Amino acid sequence: MAMMLVNGTPADSIPVTDRGLAYGDGVFRTLCAVDGRPLHWARHYAKLNSDCAALQIPCPDAATLLAEVRAASAAVAQASVKIIVTRGSGPRGYALPQPCVPTRIVMADAYAPMPQNENGIHLHLCRLRLAHQPALAGVKHLNRLENVLARAEWSDAAVAEGLLLDQTEHVIGGTMSNLFIVENNTLITPDLSRCGVAGVTRARVIDLAKQAGVTCRVEAVSLQRVLDADAMFVVNSLIGLWPVARLAERSWAPNALSKQVAQWLKADDAARH
Amino acid sequence: MAMMLVNGTPADSIPVTDRGLAYGDGVFRTLCAVDGRPLHWARHYAKLNSDCAALQIPCPDAATLLAEVRAASAAVAQASVKIIVTRGSGPRGYALPQPCVPTRIVMADAYAPMPQNENGIHLHLCRLRLAHQPALAGVKHLNRLENVLARAEWSDAAVAEGLLLDQTEHVIGGTMSNLFIVENNTLITPDLSRCGVAGVTRARVIDLAKQAGVTCRVEAVSLQRVLDADAMFVVNSLIGLWPVARLAERSWAPNALSKQVAQWLKADDAARH
Repeated sequence: MAMMLVNGTPADSIPVTDRGLAYGDGVFRTLCAVDGRPLHWARHYAKLNSDCAALQIPCPDAATLLAEVRAASAAVAQASVKIIVTRGSGPRGYALPQPCVPTRIVMADAYAPMPQNENGIHLHLCRLRLAHQPALAGVKHLNRLENVLARAEWSDAAVAEGLLLDQTEHVIGGTMSNLFIVENNTLITPDLSRCGVAGVTRARVIDLAKQAGVTCRVEAVSLQRVLDADAMFVVNSLIGLWPVARLAERSWAPNALSKQVAQWLKADDAARH
Repeated sequence: MAMMLVNGTPADSIPVTDRGLAYGDGVFRTLCAVDGRPLHWARHYAKLNSDCAALQIPCPDAATLLAEVRAASAAVAQASVKIIVTRGSGPRGYALPQPCVPTRIVMADAYAPMPQNENGIHLHLCRLRLAHQPALAGVKHLNRLENVLARAEWSDAAVAEGLLLDQTEHVIGGTMSNLFIVENNTLITPDLSRCGVAGVTRARVIDLAKQAGVTCRVEAVSLQRVLDADAMFVVNSLIGLWPVARLAERSWAPNALSKQVAQWLKADDAARH
């Protein structure tokens, strides 16, 4: 049973006039909490703050949100937590309400462990192409119809994720995850300056690689480059790391660097407990 | 005081788990009702139905929705009505919920007459460029952050609307309206196959022009073509028609064909009372 707080008060609904509903005018985060303590909180809050800034939404303060995340997740040993911040309610029309009173929603569920998928997942190659919108690129906002339409392209339960390309045929990531490829013991993750969501786990992998002395670059990635890579994996805050075993006709064997990155992430999680 | 129905029942809130909030996973309509009778209902319902189909959302049936629009707007002589249809609630994640139980929201307010602006409005030339997404182009969905960001570019109350261009510098329309230009007694409205919202009033103008024997074409329109036009106007269901008097350094005098189109729309509204 989910625990939900709306502006700090137990509640399971929001006003129909909220701009989060009317326009998708808000941002969100998904993260894990252990014994009421959110993992990688500083990173998640920093990202929430910068995503709010991109939309000119005043970000709720860190202490208030942290207290709400702790309260919502305290009752379960392992929780998956979703935070939504919207621009709040306003009169009809697109103009920003003055003053702006953001709505904050914190939802915590008992964490249903995601499949380990240690042997690797199958990826669907999505037909939908992501649009280029530099004003929103990287931001985890509530305008997610592209992800919904892409995810609706397959229903085979054996396919865990879909691979999204943009309008210029560059690989961007998964529908709910960021992507890395391995080339000669180097990590490459797609440039997200025109579309996609720049997730916290992606940022952690970039930093952990640097600490370990492994080269990790952010670059434009073509589909052919993915197919030619030594290995590929996807990451997010709930799944950790899933190696990719198959995309279309191409299959990959387990890879040493991919395994190493998975271990970095697990050790880093454990250090934050 | 607004009258609100959620799934036919008086209510002013929706579950926080609704995908309309989580992903902007839904569509909407804005229209006028007179004495509880929505104007141009058949067109609005047809558009709602086709927008739902674009998102693979089962559209509520016409009789149910019409009864709710009438009930919500019955108490006021002139009402502005907003209809939202979302994919409803579902488990976490982008995958479509099975079964899908859409949420329908009908809100009616006493209609605050929009400024007549018969002498023409000032247009802000938006810096934001609309992204190309053919899978969503034309659809009035709930992913409207581009409109929000564009509308946030100006706060001068003397500027009534903003002009939006796309990534390839084609003129698309207003932030909340569709656009027509007049060239030698011909009407031109931008092609919306890559972005923008194809509104009901735009469709009415196209049909009314045809009935009147006035040529009206859907074409790619550059900013220079707009500046060179004999006249320009914007339309939507609430404002009717606003002539454009000024954009940047360019100003326009009142135009006979623009006035004629405004009269067509008013006569067509009156015929539906």
